[in-house]
Amino acid sequence: MTAAAEPSKAVLLLSCPDRVGLVARIANFIYERGGNILDLNEHVDVDERQFFLRVSWSLDNFSIPADDLESAFAPLAREFRANWTIRFSGTRNRMAVFVSKYDHCLREILWRHSLGEFDIDIPLVISNHPDLAPLVEAHGIPFHVVPVTPETKAAAEQRQMALCEEHGIDTIVLARYMQVLSPEFTGRWAGRIINIHHSFLPAFVGGNPYRQAYRRGVKLIGATSHYVTDELDEGPIIEQDIIRITHRDTLDDLVRKGRDLERLVLARALRLHCDHRILINGRKTVVFD
Amino acid sequence: MTAAAEPSKAVLLLSCPDRVGLVARIANFIYERGGNILDLNEHVDVDERQFFLRVSWSLDNFSIPADDLESAFAPLAREFRANWTIRFSGTRNRMAVFVSKYDHCLREILWRHSLGEFDIDIPLVISNHPDLAPLVEAHGIPFHVVPVTPETKAAAEQRQMALCEEHGIDTIVLARYMQVLSPEFTGRWAGRIINIHHSFLPAFVGGNPYRQAYRRGVKLIGATSHYVTDELDEGPIIEQDIIRITHRDTLDDLVRKGRDLERLVLARALRLHCDHRILINGRKTVVFD
Amino acid sequence: MTAAAEPSKAVLLLSCPDRVGLVARIANFIYERGGNILDLNEHVDVDERQFFLRVSWSLDNFSIPADDLESAFAPLAREFRANWTIRFSGTRNRMAVFVSKYDHCLREILWRHSLGEFDIDIPLVISNHPDLAPLVEAHGIPFHVVPVTPETKAAAEQRQMALCEEHGIDTIVLARYMQVLSPEFTGRWAGRIINIHHSFLPAFVGGNPYRQAYRRGVKLIGATSHYVTDELDEGPIIEQDIIRITHRDTLDDLVRKGRDLERLVLARALRLHCDHRILINGRKTVVFD
Amino acid sequence: MTAAAEPSKAVLLLSCPDRVGLVARIANFIYERGGNILDLNEHVDVDERQFFLRVSWSLDNFSIPADDLESAFAPLAREFRANWTIRFSGTRNRMAVFVSKYDHCLREILWRHSLGEFDIDIPLVISNHPDLAPLVEAHGIPFHVVPVTPETKAAAEQRQMALCEEHGIDTIVLARYMQVLSPEFTGRWAGRIINIHHSFLPAFVGGNPYRQAYRRGVKLIGATSHYVTDELDEGPIIEQDIIRITHRDTLDDLVRKGRDLERLVLARALRLHCDHRILINGRKTVVFD
Repeated sequence: MTAAAEPSKAVLLLSCPDRVGLVARIANFIYERGGNILDLNEHVDVDERQFFLRVSWSLDNFSIPADDLESAFAPLAREFRANWTIRFSGTRNRMAVFVSKYDHCLREILWRHSLGEFDIDIPLVISNHPDLAPLVEAHGIPFHVVPVTPETKAAAEQRQMALCEEHGIDTIVLARYMQVLSPEFTGRWAGRIINIHHSFLPAFVGGNPYRQAYRRGVKLIGATSHYVTDELDEGPIIEQDIIRITHRDTLDDLVRKGRDLERLVLARALRLHCDHRILINGRKTVVFD
Repeated sequence: MTAAAEPSKAVLLLSCPDRVGLVARIANFIYERGGNILDLNEHVDVDERQFFLRVSWSLDNFSIPADDLESAFAPLAREFRANWTIRFSGTRNRMAVFVSKYDHCLREILWRHSLGEFDIDIPLVISNHPDLAPLVEAHGIPFHVVPVTPETKAAAEQRQMALCEEHGIDTIVLARYMQVLSPEFTGRWAGRIINIHHSFLPAFVGGNPYRQAYRRGVKLIGATSHYVTDELDEGPIIEQDIIRITHRDTLDDLVRKGRDLERLVLARALRLHCDHRILINGRKTVVFD
Repeated sequence: MTAAAEPSKAVLLLSCPDRVGLVARIANFIYERGGNILDLNEHVDVDERQFFLRVSWSLDNFSIPADDLESAFAPLAREFRANWTIRFSGTRNRMAVFVSKYDHCLREILWRHSLGEFDIDIPLVISNHPDLAPLVEAHGIPFHVVPVTPETKAAAEQRQMALCEEHGIDTIVLARYMQVLSPEFTGRWAGRIINIHHSFLPAFVGGNPYRQAYRRGVKLIGATSHYVTDELDEGPIIEQDIIRITHRDTLDDLVRKGRDLERLVLARALRLHCDHRILINGRKTVVFD
Repeated sequence: MTAAAEPSKAVLLLSCPDRVGLVARIANFIYERGGNILDLNEHVDVDERQFFLRVSWSLDNFSIPADDLESAFAPLAREFRANWTIRFSGTRNRMAVFVSKYDHCLREILWRHSLGEFDIDIPLVISNHPDLAPLVEAHGIPFHVVPVTPETKAAAEQRQMALCEEHGIDTIVLARYMQVLSPEFTGRWAGRIINIHHSFLPAFVGGNPYRQAYRRGVKLIGATSHYVTDELDEGPIIEQDIIRITHRDTLDDLVRKGRDLERLVLARALRLHCDHRILINGRKTVVFD
């Protein structure tokens, strides 16, 4: 995270086994220290008896400094056996974008980033092809070419991970990156890699989904943004959308219409992720939008 | 409300001027009495500095009986200068449906009611025309014809209100009821009358919106469900949706396509209302869906 | 078809290998006999070099009687090696509805039929359960129970087909009919059986698609109406649509929201079919809406 | 138009009073000269007894040269009292983009143009502010600043029109251009100026529609692309779409979400226009998509 001088707001994301009093005790923790809750959402997965919470509060009159907050909250979290993170306003998610040759998702991210729509820094873009270097460098962002062949894949991934660690990356975005990451990679970055797949998953998993859709004669095409796991196209889904097509649409039309979907769906997913609105629940997500 | 023997769940809807500690103190009120919060949503209208809350909790181990809950909560609400209501599970909203001659919205309500989609009772249907009596009576619901002419309107409304009071009605649904209610009526039933307007408000207010839409050559038509106030078509909007049309659609096609919208949009609004998910915020609504 | 006294309009649906002059020669055939074209749509599948046409024309000053039209057009069609049908206004599609226990799709069809939205007759409803008899009979439509067990399935299908032939059925609608038809049945009724599947095909083929969708954590659920072939859930798709869901939706919520989709998508497909707007193109459809 | 060496395809757009034989005679005109119809769509406005046609055909074996086609077709068009245009493939629409300070619609056009999605040339961009010069010039397109004040407006418009004529402009796109054009301007460029309005017209005409929408508490916001006439926001609508909002969305959120709508709706409208798919029908459009 890129930290700012004085955060004005904290966001807690927490999940734990459900029990009585979770909301009250967490709200009290904040209230008793002078925090003013700005937004609170909770969800209980009744099947799994699991509790999910997102709460943001103002730090204006908060009695403990931001630096001490995690250690102050830790005992409560331990009691609840919770997975949790606290993020502070002004701390920007550091995002590495992985691309190949298609530019539409990358352009969308860069443009929204330039408008300040996302609370992110983009310290680098990594690609297995040199084609998009001019676009990236025109935005003043370093562009790293890491070629990938079947033989060099393992070394290439080591290089990619090293670059990400070196730049303090929080999240990797696969913006139509055309290589499948190894289980080792996805395991080390679990919950921190976001992909855009150009179909309405789980329809048309794998390669060339537009061609699959065209051949099947569907009347809608879709796009899906999801966290990447070691099972291809099976990670927890963050966001999906569709667009209508007809018999008049050629395969090229599907690709063209699909581009619009892909970039919008990916952009929405990134925004939710960067706003700390997503908790992973097994193969699913809880999205507090 | 039609009350059940032992409610298992309570829902509090509350709005008040924003201040520090509202969530914590309300969550504590519930927690300290043994309630388990099932769902909590809050919203702050920053412009108006107004706080909105919906919280539901289990009464399984709650230490005070349902009958005493309102008086127990009243002091806190007074301190917060809050508008609030508490509803109990098993207490069904008593709904009067007003219709004229169109049956599609009425049918939709009756069908969903028969499936148990809504937590309501329908003690009566009131119409200014006799046409829909057989449909209503086939569902075992009393049908009252209250004709309305310019001369008899005031008396007719007195009769309508008397019928509603007599049957302990909570909410009136105008299911394509083709008469405008007087300010006296809407004032007395403020926040408790739900209308479906067959346009995407505020486009095409007033009469014959499909004809207006047809003449204007729009590419989408809409429907809007809203609370009724004394300003025609200006009440707080609960739900809206649209459907695509083309130059091939005649005025009859607009009416036909619009019917599907009207009944779905009204049904969604009623469900939100009966689930106690809506708070009115001036000319707007806060919908905790 | 149920024929009317004097048709005022004819609709030709035609597909054939593409070649020069098809539109001109068919338009001339109509024009030279005094027909006024009301609506013409054509499509060329460039991959398959196949031509598709829908043309409707007024018979007001048409020089040959409706009864002679097919034999007059046959030579042209033969020259073009075309698949073709001509339908006349006032000739209603005779539709058999197959149901099991769910009533929502059946209700939707019956209601729209009562409004005259479809140009159909419904001479009978066939079910493997007696539950929906009262609903159907209240509309004055004969209801036939044909129970189906693994042992009796072949005989049951013989009975179903005999009933359909006896009643001059054109189209069979599977309105959430919970039995899989045999290849013999689907082969004999190829292009004349319309199903509604409660998923966005090809996602979630087979049984219990809502449960599959719920477990996968998708953010949209869908419904698909298609012609039935001998491959389950693989027939040519007529219409699809989706609705948004969230982590808050339980499996019951998916079923509830899905009902709305199913009945609307099926209704749209039936309307397109009855208006003679669909041509089958291998595994796909050409829909002239 | 920017003409190419040898067009391979012609598109005729035609409207005229409806009469018998229009499709046949036009199809024959093409067929008899060796043209192969690729696509034909027609529509009859029954209320206005007006006929609309779009037909495209291959010129591969066409017996008259492209240069002579208009004069060859003119007698038929005269007989039909038709408004008509013929466009050839490879002839690109020359488009001037007018902007102020917002870049999102301009970026969208430039990006799609760079992908070849539109069949256009962009010989110049005109703005009343210098801000977007770098973006435009980075694409190698001349950028002209024509400041507009109440005093200089008439002269500024003369300058704008002179620039457009000088560059052989076919179509002007108002890509969030924040000045109202005079009736003189819109009259001279009737049917050739396309605007994007940031509301679902006719809701929220005039200034600051997002603020209007925010205050009204609508649950959907929209965008509308239309031809510009001398009545503000009243021209024939080409395309509209909407996006869902909630009580959680601030005015800034509406602006942000609306940007996505605006650029997509404008892009769709431009594509339809450049593909010669739109005919104006009084205050409406016929869109053959």
